[in-house]
Amino acid sequence: MATSLRELLSGVTTLADVNSRSTPGFDGDKKDARDAMAQLGEELADLQERLWANGTRDDPRTVLLVLQGMDTSGKGGTIRHAAGLVDPQGLRITSFKKPTPEELEHDFLWRIEKALPPPGKIGIFDRSQYEDVLICRVRELAAAEEIERRYDAINDFEQAYVEAGGTMIKCLLHITADNQKERLTARLDDPTKHWKYNPGDVDERALWDDYQQAYDLALARCSTEPAPWFVVPSGRKWYRNWAVATLLLEHLRALGLTWPAADFDVDAEKARVAAS
Amino acid sequence: MATSLRELLSGVTTLADVNSRSTPGFDGDKKDARDAMAQLGEELADLQERLWANGTRDDPRTVLLVLQGMDTSGKGGTIRHAAGLVDPQGLRITSFKKPTPEELEHDFLWRIEKALPPPGKIGIFDRSQYEDVLICRVRELAAAEEIERRYDAINDFEQAYVEAGGTMIKCLLHITADNQKERLTARLDDPTKHWKYNPGDVDERALWDDYQQAYDLALARCSTEPAPWFVVPSGRKWYRNWAVATLLLEHLRALGLTWPAADFDVDAEKARVAAS
Repeated sequence: MATSLRELLSGVTTLADVNSRSTPGFDGDKKDARDAMAQLGEELADLQERLWANGTRDDPRTVLLVLQGMDTSGKGGTIRHAAGLVDPQGLRITSFKKPTPEELEHDFLWRIEKALPPPGKIGIFDRSQYEDVLICRVRELAAAEEIERRYDAINDFEQAYVEAGGTMIKCLLHITADNQKERLTARLDDPTKHWKYNPGDVDERALWDDYQQAYDLALARCSTEPAPWFVVPSGRKWYRNWAVATLLLEHLRALGLTWPAADFDVDAEKARVAAS
Repeated sequence: MATSLRELLSGVTTLADVNSRSTPGFDGDKKDARDAMAQLGEELADLQERLWANGTRDDPRTVLLVLQGMDTSGKGGTIRHAAGLVDPQGLRITSFKKPTPEELEHDFLWRIEKALPPPGKIGIFDRSQYEDVLICRVRELAAAEEIERRYDAINDFEQAYVEAGGTMIKCLLHITADNQKERLTARLDDPTKHWKYNPGDVDERALWDDYQQAYDLALARCSTEPAPWFVVPSGRKWYRNWAVATLLLEHLRALGLTWPAADFDVDAEKARVAAS
């Protein structure tokens, strides 16, 4: 692939311009994607272990994968398939739900900051700080000026995270209202999927256009140089999984991770072990 | 397999009686074990998802995999290969290090209780409450009476956990001093493994026999009906990984996990989605 996926998937400001079933950067079908995942999984696991190894030696670097998207866009499935390629010990996964009363007493970024990954770990956010400018905007859960303030607050927060050694990969899993309808119908048709279905999802679905506008605003206001947005066409699950795994891989590669050098005398230790 | 692995690996009270390179319950070699892992991985992932699904519906059940073993016995490798077979979102992994000053101000079980998995999750302990009767005994980090008290405190704690809906799977990853010597030597021979080597490990190694006695005591005092110990021969990594994955599978199977029933009117929701 001549162009990186990072370049191919960034720069979007209008979701309606993106075909949810397109597969930018990938020539092939579902079967090819499965093979590609298995292959990149090895490199991903190796790089994750290097990140972790350096974290044990006071290297402050971390990686944070932020997943946003409408219901059924596949945030959970992406975590299972893409993040599932690396050692689970190297992950810190946080799923952000409706804020608790305690969380609501604090600034909206309070719970987000508490969930940042420690050195050497890959953090994963299933929903994120963006809920506070998405559902909060659409459902008018905060005053208009407060929502307005949050875009800048998010940009400041993300810049500070990156300056402290973080790499943030923000993925918007893009589906259409028709994709969602198919998936909700499939859930209802399969009794083993009923537990995933929430009647409230249909209420949110009625506000589809408002959400798309709120997403477009988040893309326009919060695609910054230190933390750009990537719009991942997610109408095909296998492409979505491959694309997020590939974005993770490209960002890890860019860190140029080497193995930490020994902080002890290797020959002396060999002699000690041999004599033990 | 006629006999369950649970039966085959329980009931040990003297580590010296167990051949670390034996493979009870498994007919085959490394390649066969890899195939077996891939196969059982599917059922394991399915059962983990059922556990999680029920957890979202106020089912209090949880599973806790406790891993103990000498340095290089492969606690981390077991997590990567066995726990790595399921969705990382369903795991809560805690690695217990040397207690912090804050932890030392509390009873030894304080930090353990805080790390128990929430409903629906599989908890994994990399080291555990047993450190407080292992290294603490060998290194005399607590008074003899306090150590003595801890065996009963552990049994009470584990019984309470099981009565609250927990399933505890305690695995002792058994290696010999020779196995450890080989593995420490291999780490020193490979620069990509130097970060895992800690000169302090050789100091602990000098106390090998004391540790084996402390382990035997923990096996004798804390193999209870609600929370038995399993001694996993870990001289062959592929057997160790297969055995722990199989123990996890057998315990999950025993829970008889079904999918939660819909708590909404399925036909009414189908109509709503169709009309949306």
